[in-house]
Amino acid sequence: MHFASSATSLVGTLRDRRQKLAKLVNFPVVLWSGATISRNFAANTFPFRASSHFLYFAGLPLENAAIRLEDGKLQLFMDDAPDSSTLWHGETAKREEVAEIIGADVAYPLTGLKFNVYKSATIPVQNIVTREWQSKLLQRKASLEGIDFKLAKAIAQLRLTHDDAAIEELKKAAAVTVKAHKAGMTATKNAKSEAEVRAAMEQVIIANNMSCAYSSIVTVRGEVLHNNHYDNLLQPGDLLLADVGAETSTGWAADVTRTWAVSGKFSSTQQDIYDVVLAAHDACIAKICPSVEYQDIHLLAATIIAQGLVDLGILRGIPEDLVAMDAHALFFPHGVGHLLGLDVHDMEDLGDIAGYEEGRTRSDRFGLCYLRLNRPLRAKMLVTIEPGFYQVPAVLNNPDTRAKYQDVVKWEQLAKFADVRGIRIEDDVLVTENGSEVLTEALPTSEDAIANLVNE
Amino acid sequence: MHFASSATSLVGTLRDRRQKLAKLVNFPVVLWSGATISRNFAANTFPFRASSHFLYFAGLPLENAAIRLEDGKLQLFMDDAPDSSTLWHGETAKREEVAEIIGADVAYPLTGLKFNVYKSATIPVQNIVTREWQSKLLQRKASLEGIDFKLAKAIAQLRLTHDDAAIEELKKAAAVTVKAHKAGMTATKNAKSEAEVRAAMEQVIIANNMSCAYSSIVTVRGEVLHNNHYDNLLQPGDLLLADVGAETSTGWAADVTRTWAVSGKFSSTQQDIYDVVLAAHDACIAKICPSVEYQDIHLLAATIIAQGLVDLGILRGIPEDLVAMDAHALFFPHGVGHLLGLDVHDMEDLGDIAGYEEGRTRSDRFGLCYLRLNRPLRAKMLVTIEPGFYQVPAVLNNPDTRAKYQDVVKWEQLAKFADVRGIRIEDDVLVTENGSEVLTEALPTSEDAIANLVNE
Repeated sequence: MHFASSATSLVGTLRDRRQKLAKLVNFPVVLWSGATISRNFAANTFPFRASSHFLYFAGLPLENAAIRLEDGKLQLFMDDAPDSSTLWHGETAKREEVAEIIGADVAYPLTGLKFNVYKSATIPVQNIVTREWQSKLLQRKASLEGIDFKLAKAIAQLRLTHDDAAIEELKKAAAVTVKAHKAGMTATKNAKSEAEVRAAMEQVIIANNMSCAYSSIVTVRGEVLHNNHYDNLLQPGDLLLADVGAETSTGWAADVTRTWAVSGKFSSTQQDIYDVVLAAHDACIAKICPSVEYQDIHLLAATIIAQGLVDLGILRGIPEDLVAMDAHALFFPHGVGHLLGLDVHDMEDLGDIAGYEEGRTRSDRFGLCYLRLNRPLRAKMLVTIEPGFYQVPAVLNNPDTRAKYQDVVKWEQLAKFADVRGIRIEDDVLVTENGSEVLTEALPTSEDAIANLVNE
Repeated sequence: MHFASSATSLVGTLRDRRQKLAKLVNFPVVLWSGATISRNFAANTFPFRASSHFLYFAGLPLENAAIRLEDGKLQLFMDDAPDSSTLWHGETAKREEVAEIIGADVAYPLTGLKFNVYKSATIPVQNIVTREWQSKLLQRKASLEGIDFKLAKAIAQLRLTHDDAAIEELKKAAAVTVKAHKAGMTATKNAKSEAEVRAAMEQVIIANNMSCAYSSIVTVRGEVLHNNHYDNLLQPGDLLLADVGAETSTGWAADVTRTWAVSGKFSSTQQDIYDVVLAAHDACIAKICPSVEYQDIHLLAATIIAQGLVDLGILRGIPEDLVAMDAHALFFPHGVGHLLGLDVHDMEDLGDIAGYEEGRTRSDRFGLCYLRLNRPLRAKMLVTIEPGFYQVPAVLNNPDTRAKYQDVVKWEQLAKFADVRGIRIEDDVLVTENGSEVLTEALPTSEDAIANLVNE
């Protein structure tokens, strides 16, 4: 077992978290960590990732473990590794040692769990084997209903804003992610393929003993939003879009995107669009402070992009009207960002419980349906701000779309911007008492500063 | 969809493979590819890894697909991606295009599968959701029994030896793995931690658009056989053991270990033990040729290690006698290697069906029970050769062990070798008609050649 955190502060942090939870729920809570998952055969597994809810209250990525929380007390359930595993996995921390590190009041073997789940709430974990175990012990399906739903709402309320220990970890993830992006920029000049730039970026994450919070996107085809292929060769006129983020050993994530010219120098059309996206990015961040509606930030990005495209002669009309008819979404089809924390889309396993204020639901509008966060901001929330511009053939070549937006898109003018496939600029922004702090501010957004790194 | 292989040769290769299978089984065969698996929330998945048996007969890592093989014919079952996925994942190859690339005789949507599984055999995939789907469609548990067992034996017979297309891929994986190890050696001088050396190695694999065939081991604590932590700092007197292998995009693996001095220079005790392990490594490879029993190669390694430890005054007695009483296994507790192919422990999902000649079972002996391969070698088999020496506290400090081997281990002499925690030297060796070809030969094993890379 390898624990980087200082045990003293971990104990206090975890105590605070469960005491806050105890004020929100009047039932016991059992959270499972999950288990390793086989890749191509049983012994060849994917790297273990503990459930984020477990990590929040247990602090450590323990495999095959569970915790019980009641009235601020913490019970740990885990088995000591069998002696036979020492040969293969070395000495691992014993249950009693782990209990001390995390400040558990008491610790039992896993067999004790079945006597302690009665009337407990839980959150279903991703691992299906563990989920079946949850259902079996609870004698009901773990499914975000009933008290599980109440628990999900309570946990969402806690995890929506970050405590000092969380922010410390999030800053570590952000700092390594900044380094990774700088390494990617610097590697571009001599790289022949997307894969080589990706490698330079992930090397930084691995060297810092972190993992990737999500599958990296490093592509010259930025218009494919979740492009996880890396086999394109880099051409001088290409834009390279890199969406790469680190995750600390206890699960805290960063999520950053930059787009730069492979040659180090934008074409004039690329520069024009980049400036529009950057203006949206900067304006959104400037607007962030407590009680601002995140949807308004999204609409601000949409409006600035619409205004920019009008100025470039790509769209025709009044920006606010264009946004009202979702014309911006032809080029900016996703939300301006999302919650960030232990998950890169924080608490997305809870559906929209965390992302949407109670009583709100997703819009049907093309320009709003992908918005993952719709709440008034609060201090210590961490959100991404990630406006973008993409030319997605499936969107722009759709005959219905072309008909619907016939009068507002100047297609001939748009054709001049063919060398802009996709641009996104994304930072991680902590809401503060009177504004915001950009955790990833050390990574430049200006063309010149990025070009300096590419040409280094 | 991104396919590196040349379509022409892929079609021919896959036809040959299923025609060979048709000669071994008289029932239809349905193989599933599996599906992506969620990490911390549904949309955040581990990288997809198709089932190796599927890859062998379908050639491409198709997600959520199945193939049916009968009398040398190939039917493909897959759904085209919905239009809505284009925004996120771009244009993907349609069923009919994939069918052409792999030479399928006919292609159907997945719904067609249920009409085509009657009396078919299958191999259970690792992904549990897909496995439940297999059981549901087959109306029985997919469990390596009955005709599934017959199929497993037939597939093992085919996959035991590699065709030209497989060898081509295996050589690609080996070549990138060699580069990765060289990069690790070169990075050591300026690296402060295991993680930094690991990063330098995996960077090469990622840059070549491959993935890691298994979780890398890069550790100064080589005595922990499957050590997947990377947080130790490098100290001048340390040995660094790196067991890292690449896997090509169609699933073919390499598996290589080297052990080198962090300082570039072994201590005299490290040099002594390294020379023993290297002697075993070289002798085992020299002995490889068709019809040699792999267990005899294992015992040869054991005997050379025992002899070397006798020469160093660590063991006392006749090497053959020491091996007969498993004294070598105090320091060399694992098998000398295993099959290598689409899985790093090839076909380990079939238990010992592939690894053990029919009628043979695992030994109870401590010195043999971890041997994963016990067959006479045949041309075009690919095996690893990986003798090692480890000082595992749990083994050496066990009172029963100390009592049992009291007369043969000179504990005081052993204590002088305290700076040798673990050494392993592993190469990938293809059995040829009259000997062997070491696919990873370009990676040096001699101390001097490695030191040159470390000191580069």
